[in-house]
Amino acid sequence: MKKIWEGRIAKKTDSKVEKFTSSINIDISLYLYDIMGTIAHVMGLSKIGIVEKVELESILKGLKEIKEEIEQRAIETSGYEDIHSLVETELEKKVGNVAGKIHTGRSRNDQIVLDEKLYIKDATIDILKKILFLEKSIIGVAEKYFDTIIPAFTHLQKAQPVIWSHYLLSYFEKFKRDILRFFECFENCDYLPLGSAACTGSSYNIDRNFLKEILKFKDVSSNSMDDVGSRDFIIDFIYSCSITMLHLSQFCEDLIIYSTQEFSLVDIDESFCTGSSIMPQKKNPDVLELIRGKASVVIGNLTQLLVLVKALPSTYNRDLQEDKKILFSAYNETSESIEIFSDLLLNLKLNQMAIDEDLADGFLEATDMADYLVKKGESFRKAHHVVGSVVRYCIENNLRIKDLALEKLKEFSPRFEKDIYSCIDPKACVDSKKVDCGTNREMVRTRIESGKKLLGDFEMRLEKIKKRVISFEELISNIPVT
Amino acid sequence: MKKIWEGRIAKKTDSKVEKFTSSINIDISLYLYDIMGTIAHVMGLSKIGIVEKVELESILKGLKEIKEEIEQRAIETSGYEDIHSLVETELEKKVGNVAGKIHTGRSRNDQIVLDEKLYIKDATIDILKKILFLEKSIIGVAEKYFDTIIPAFTHLQKAQPVIWSHYLLSYFEKFKRDILRFFECFENCDYLPLGSAACTGSSYNIDRNFLKEILKFKDVSSNSMDDVGSRDFIIDFIYSCSITMLHLSQFCEDLIIYSTQEFSLVDIDESFCTGSSIMPQKKNPDVLELIRGKASVVIGNLTQLLVLVKALPSTYNRDLQEDKKILFSAYNETSESIEIFSDLLLNLKLNQMAIDEDLADGFLEATDMADYLVKKGESFRKAHHVVGSVVRYCIENNLRIKDLALEKLKEFSPRFEKDIYSCIDPKACVDSKKVDCGTNREMVRTRIESGKKLLGDFEMRLEKIKKRVISFEELISNIPVT
Amino acid sequence: MKKIWEGRIAKKTDSKVEKFTSSINIDISLYLYDIMGTIAHVMGLSKIGIVEKVELESILKGLKEIKEEIEQRAIETSGYEDIHSLVETELEKKVGNVAGKIHTGRSRNDQIVLDEKLYIKDATIDILKKILFLEKSIIGVAEKYFDTIIPAFTHLQKAQPVIWSHYLLSYFEKFKRDILRFFECFENCDYLPLGSAACTGSSYNIDRNFLKEILKFKDVSSNSMDDVGSRDFIIDFIYSCSITMLHLSQFCEDLIIYSTQEFSLVDIDESFCTGSSIMPQKKNPDVLELIRGKASVVIGNLTQLLVLVKALPSTYNRDLQEDKKILFSAYNETSESIEIFSDLLLNLKLNQMAIDEDLADGFLEATDMADYLVKKGESFRKAHHVVGSVVRYCIENNLRIKDLALEKLKEFSPRFEKDIYSCIDPKACVDSKKVDCGTNREMVRTRIESGKKLLGDFEMRLEKIKKRVISFEELISNIPVT
Amino acid sequence: MKKIWEGRIAKKTDSKVEKFTSSINIDISLYLYDIMGTIAHVMGLSKIGIVEKVELESILKGLKEIKEEIEQRAIETSGYEDIHSLVETELEKKVGNVAGKIHTGRSRNDQIVLDEKLYIKDATIDILKKILFLEKSIIGVAEKYFDTIIPAFTHLQKAQPVIWSHYLLSYFEKFKRDILRFFECFENCDYLPLGSAACTGSSYNIDRNFLKEILKFKDVSSNSMDDVGSRDFIIDFIYSCSITMLHLSQFCEDLIIYSTQEFSLVDIDESFCTGSSIMPQKKNPDVLELIRGKASVVIGNLTQLLVLVKALPSTYNRDLQEDKKILFSAYNETSESIEIFSDLLLNLKLNQMAIDEDLADGFLEATDMADYLVKKGESFRKAHHVVGSVVRYCIENNLRIKDLALEKLKEFSPRFEKDIYSCIDPKACVDSKKVDCGTNREMVRTRIESGKKLLGDFEMRLEKIKKRVISFEELISNIPVT
Repeated sequence: MKKIWEGRIAKKTDSKVEKFTSSINIDISLYLYDIMGTIAHVMGLSKIGIVEKVELESILKGLKEIKEEIEQRAIETSGYEDIHSLVETELEKKVGNVAGKIHTGRSRNDQIVLDEKLYIKDATIDILKKILFLEKSIIGVAEKYFDTIIPAFTHLQKAQPVIWSHYLLSYFEKFKRDILRFFECFENCDYLPLGSAACTGSSYNIDRNFLKEILKFKDVSSNSMDDVGSRDFIIDFIYSCSITMLHLSQFCEDLIIYSTQEFSLVDIDESFCTGSSIMPQKKNPDVLELIRGKASVVIGNLTQLLVLVKALPSTYNRDLQEDKKILFSAYNETSESIEIFSDLLLNLKLNQMAIDEDLADGFLEATDMADYLVKKGESFRKAHHVVGSVVRYCIENNLRIKDLALEKLKEFSPRFEKDIYSCIDPKACVDSKKVDCGTNREMVRTRIESGKKLLGDFEMRLEKIKKRVISFEELISNIPVT
Repeated sequence: MKKIWEGRIAKKTDSKVEKFTSSINIDISLYLYDIMGTIAHVMGLSKIGIVEKVELESILKGLKEIKEEIEQRAIETSGYEDIHSLVETELEKKVGNVAGKIHTGRSRNDQIVLDEKLYIKDATIDILKKILFLEKSIIGVAEKYFDTIIPAFTHLQKAQPVIWSHYLLSYFEKFKRDILRFFECFENCDYLPLGSAACTGSSYNIDRNFLKEILKFKDVSSNSMDDVGSRDFIIDFIYSCSITMLHLSQFCEDLIIYSTQEFSLVDIDESFCTGSSIMPQKKNPDVLELIRGKASVVIGNLTQLLVLVKALPSTYNRDLQEDKKILFSAYNETSESIEIFSDLLLNLKLNQMAIDEDLADGFLEATDMADYLVKKGESFRKAHHVVGSVVRYCIENNLRIKDLALEKLKEFSPRFEKDIYSCIDPKACVDSKKVDCGTNREMVRTRIESGKKLLGDFEMRLEKIKKRVISFEELISNIPVT
Repeated sequence: MKKIWEGRIAKKTDSKVEKFTSSINIDISLYLYDIMGTIAHVMGLSKIGIVEKVELESILKGLKEIKEEIEQRAIETSGYEDIHSLVETELEKKVGNVAGKIHTGRSRNDQIVLDEKLYIKDATIDILKKILFLEKSIIGVAEKYFDTIIPAFTHLQKAQPVIWSHYLLSYFEKFKRDILRFFECFENCDYLPLGSAACTGSSYNIDRNFLKEILKFKDVSSNSMDDVGSRDFIIDFIYSCSITMLHLSQFCEDLIIYSTQEFSLVDIDESFCTGSSIMPQKKNPDVLELIRGKASVVIGNLTQLLVLVKALPSTYNRDLQEDKKILFSAYNETSESIEIFSDLLLNLKLNQMAIDEDLADGFLEATDMADYLVKKGESFRKAHHVVGSVVRYCIENNLRIKDLALEKLKEFSPRFEKDIYSCIDPKACVDSKKVDCGTNREMVRTRIESGKKLLGDFEMRLEKIKKRVISFEELISNIPVT
Repeated sequence: MKKIWEGRIAKKTDSKVEKFTSSINIDISLYLYDIMGTIAHVMGLSKIGIVEKVELESILKGLKEIKEEIEQRAIETSGYEDIHSLVETELEKKVGNVAGKIHTGRSRNDQIVLDEKLYIKDATIDILKKILFLEKSIIGVAEKYFDTIIPAFTHLQKAQPVIWSHYLLSYFEKFKRDILRFFECFENCDYLPLGSAACTGSSYNIDRNFLKEILKFKDVSSNSMDDVGSRDFIIDFIYSCSITMLHLSQFCEDLIIYSTQEFSLVDIDESFCTGSSIMPQKKNPDVLELIRGKASVVIGNLTQLLVLVKALPSTYNRDLQEDKKILFSAYNETSESIEIFSDLLLNLKLNQMAIDEDLADGFLEATDMADYLVKKGESFRKAHHVVGSVVRYCIENNLRIKDLALEKLKEFSPRFEKDIYSCIDPKACVDSKKVDCGTNREMVRTRIESGKKLLGDFEMRLEKIKKRVISFEELISNIPVT
């Protein structure tokens, strides 16, 4: 392969070096964006007279063909240094020397940033679609088992009764924040980098606004040196992926534990489980475990890019080539995990019988009992102490609170009256949390409704940003006919 | 120290365990927020009749005293488990049993989240102030040496001439994004968590909107289980710190290299350097190196919190106690680094003589020379090759391009004409980058002006959010007089 | 504070800079090692005639006093830049100008490495003591409940019956590897760095072998530039801490889950639990959760130091100052965690009743049933399938395998005979794993015995390296009397 | 694809789930180890009578064919779940039902650990070979330019003169420690895991010692639960890779800076550089930058695996499937980086002229000048101050020290005599560092000789462990002929 810089460097690149510095195996994933960026750039060059009409037509035709050939795997890619040189060289084969013009006024330094921004815009929309579907699934499953009462755990110890939908909505909140973060990501990378060239700006009269329009960027970027060296938009994206994976990892941890035979609160559909090659009775929550594992991969991807950029001199350094494998890993793992998790969730069943058993034990009503005493005039500190002693007494005598007679209760505190029994019924416990963030059924119902409305808003917002992404077909259709 | 849970757990906590689980050394930093949160909570309890007026007065008086005593180091803190128990116990000493009421309707689980949110709101404003000052400093230093031409580097190799202010503005862009991220952080933690209690919501009729108003939160949070378990608002904050430190680390790396004797582009003021204990001639850029080192600390803080939360079961787990040392480290290192860096920058000098020498060597004009040929009709590929050969020839003969006679140049390409010499003058090179992200002086001037305007907008925005933070004095002044 | 480099740098250090660059708050922890290193160095200087006998005596006396004053908190440390300048300046107050000699022939660059190596040698021994105690505790608890059968889990789903001691020994293996790693750490830092001075070696005729002897290093280091710049010995140590914390985090995770009410396999002693400030019935495994959380802190410490060193130019850079807070955190969190965990483990109880219930459900005998068929001539694949169907049938009909009559079993496979019932008894299942790494009781007994022997060997090895650490008293006693 | 667990799980796995849980794309890299492990296992089964002779022969023949077909890409791998099921299913196609026997007495849980251990044993040897070659290259280049004097830098500021070989040997030391760490890695994974089965040990009478012998493991592992769940041996290996990459990143950073036009100390051979697509004069140190970038990737790989294992319940969890992509990345990046770096180093040239210029400036002789005064009786503190003032005077008057007349020097200190001039000559400075870790030429020569001897020892050790690795051919040749 001829190198563009051969005028300056006399010696042939060492073949091991060529292999070592080659990134084509990774950045071939960017082919579509690279070709689209090149089309736009050449249209821009044509607009300012550097590329003639007839050249333009021939280049565009060539680029379209290259796109198709890549898609049909008709091009042997492995010998190329990177996607940029692949496109240029293949174009040269088709249109001859005029292919040399596509590098006029830009550098691989701004070109790769363009490719990556186009990639992330698409990737963000894909992830947003999937998280929105996940949120809808959460709402759906919350409604399906709306007021099934399950234990809420703190420290993985039974705490208080809660309704299933309230539990699920706690994840709705987390992914809501993730959605906002991804919308932000889209904006963060919506600035056209073309025109920055190698680092100080192009010396050609590039019409950046024209390029911005046809590539559908929100605005042009502001500083060429920042443009070619900064990967903030990628780090922000990977960070957003990390947080989403963090949330999924917690959701998975919950469900892995809740689906053990010991907890048995939920039942994962068999189609999402695998068995064991040796233990015939096993039904393993592999999908959940894999997602939890993949969270580590994505968190490490974030570390990788942060470490890579830390203390890097400004503008472009070749270290940055490594950003792509990191980005692709974070995106793919996250996207796949969200999607499969939604499916699993939609097929999840609550195990009513086991839940009922689990609720009966565990003194989940203790807090309400203490609150009862407070409302009867006890200080909270004292009430807490009294109920603690009741619980202790029950454990030692293998009893449940509701089994204690009123007289017995009065031994612990004279404030106990007959109404204590209705007050410690799980349903009553649940409904007593009337604060608007609490598990009271009416409150949760309200939250579900506002959640649905919010999703509607998010979907409209998503539709809007979808229109801010250029497709190959649309770009091609913009080309002025001769 | 008596434990609130002694009713349930009969055995005394092991003394080593007490020490191990104690967090007072760390969370004492939250004393102000814990007391303010308690004041608000008690006012809320008074509003709904749980605390009587006279109790309220006595509690508030007690809390004010505790605040002062902590500030005067009049309280021996080391024996306490955490800041919450310190406040309650000290209050009990002052007002007796009624102190027990301050825990009514809340839990340490929602209380600590409140404290941390109040802390981060303050911390974010502090950091925003400092980054804004840094941005102003950048603009100031950019104007001071506005059109001093320095080499721009890619791969740390001389690339093209650029003006100093253009270089500086590349960092202005980075910190601009950081400012936006921190504004976002402020919003992310502006939801009142009180009312969530241990995890399912308070069973008291807590007036969350009243609390929201007097603690100046934007809104109340939506889900109690999410509230007590999520640390997203802290992770977002630490992430923002990491990115700012990343940018500072790159700025430091640049300046460390530029201030070597070999580069000599900039001169760090002696007041920001230290000498060597053994080498009398040394003038070391310690401040820059320390900031670069601290970037690692903060990036690692982000890792710490991500790892901590990954796969943690939902709601509160005691692991979360460790979040505070991580948060405080990230905040302090970042805040101090930004501040000192601004000072250093304001005292930075450009080393004009060395810059001039550096510019003369290095063939920074090569790209413009190639562009010249392109504009004369050469393909870029060919032009690049021609100039590469010129450079090679110069290196081998120890010449500079401008020393070559026109006839010599014509041997490389007949397209060279006399006007080539004016075109490769550094000033001409700089001004030829007329794209709006380029180093052309007029363009940069425009960017400086729009930068100043933006800072004005940011400052107004900062003033607005400052009003959304409650101070102790203001909170106290809200208390209805008896 | 006068600076040693004031000859070269005319300007006073900015006071904010002084605060920013000061590390005394952190490195005061090294006071003992810094003073010991200084004593040795001065003895060395005396040996080669640079410090006279009378000067030596006065310096040593002064240093001893400084040590005591620091221990009695009689020195106001906060104004100093670092521990080195504290010692020198305080010495100057006591002995006058001769204090200036203690910096002859060394630099802070080699001095701080010396301090850190002495610190880690001590720290490693402390940790080794604690892990050895942990290993002994594991063996102790393994013997206490030697053949209690519990379920082994894979994917957190019940897998096969296992004896408690076999489970515990799986952690014995992990910590065994950790012990070897820490022994390695000790060796890694046992090379005297003094003599390296700032970076190219001392120009004084330092007797490194003398210093090595009196400071009890194994050998002298080999290259001055590597010496002052490398922190490998610290990274290795923090890595070892990370892995130990990783193992503890897994052990904690197991026990947190096993001690839930739902699993109820183990009972954590109340003295290691805390209650809830709001829920009177709670008994939370806080200690285990905190250790799990601290694992994140230590893993992040490793990240911090790796990031700090990555791409740092060789020899000393001031970034390295930050290594100390990272090291101290990793050491302290790890040391405390191991210690408290051992105590908790020694107080752990098995919950026999709940274990028995748990064992009865879950089809733990399924694998053995399949193996039974294989031994009767079935292919494993087929046997696996048969038993899977039996399990399925039992679940659907709410039965246990042992409840199925032989005729029923024969419907699944004619190979089942009467002896199947004895073969699927938990004890038989356990004992059938006769491989030397298996849970057969005899095999485990053998492992316990070899484990004890190994601990004996480790203890002897620990005793040996303890003798390779110098104490202050011993160092002082080496000083030749006048 | 039929699943082995279909007896238990009635529902078909969801096709998305199949894709999500499939790892064949990654673990196909383990095909050789999986087949070898299977061969050994089947030989073991034959030895204990479970597999008959004729079955054994047919299986072995089948496995050999599968190996070849994979190598010739004759098997469509993409539909398989993992490498284990690929091998089993392909075998079934060839030999029918008897293929089902290869899973007798083992599980994928111990099988994958076996594969990974065999992989790492090979990988470690490959890396050791390459680091040893790197060390030899360092020695070679050190000898080539043995006593060229270059400046040593601390804080990237010129410090003292040092000889090139002394500088290079500082890296020799670092990689020496890495070699020891990798030798340790080899030992860490040299314990046979077969026999552990799913988690409690095989119930077949597996002859582990026989398997150990034919697979050439040092010993058998001790605890089945530890075996299937622990990835310590992988973490240790990735950690070792990280540290080596850390060292390389520092070496690269040095050379990137030293090869800038401003430093010009070294010249990277053009065959290891690339040019710019836009700037014709550029010669960029891409290989060095890429290695520096890859260091981030590997450090992040370490984070990934630590995060993955942290708080994972003991024994096998599916999260562990993700370990392979992490391992392969760390190994490949490290192996390739070491190799290419050695080549680059061997082709590195010192830039004598530029070095001479650089040495002349910078007051590298200042420390020696201060030492001169100390040896004449001055206190070091005072001497440091005096020389600092001399340097200051020179800078302000644009002079070098050697240009100052003796009288002038005497103004600073009367102790200066005529011999000062010979003492501050760079060669004298270098040779004055006579400590055995110093840059004195004789000392460095000695170090080079002992370095060579050490490499010889390492090579013998490497030869020895090479014999402890089994190859496919050797394994096959062990099979008893019928």
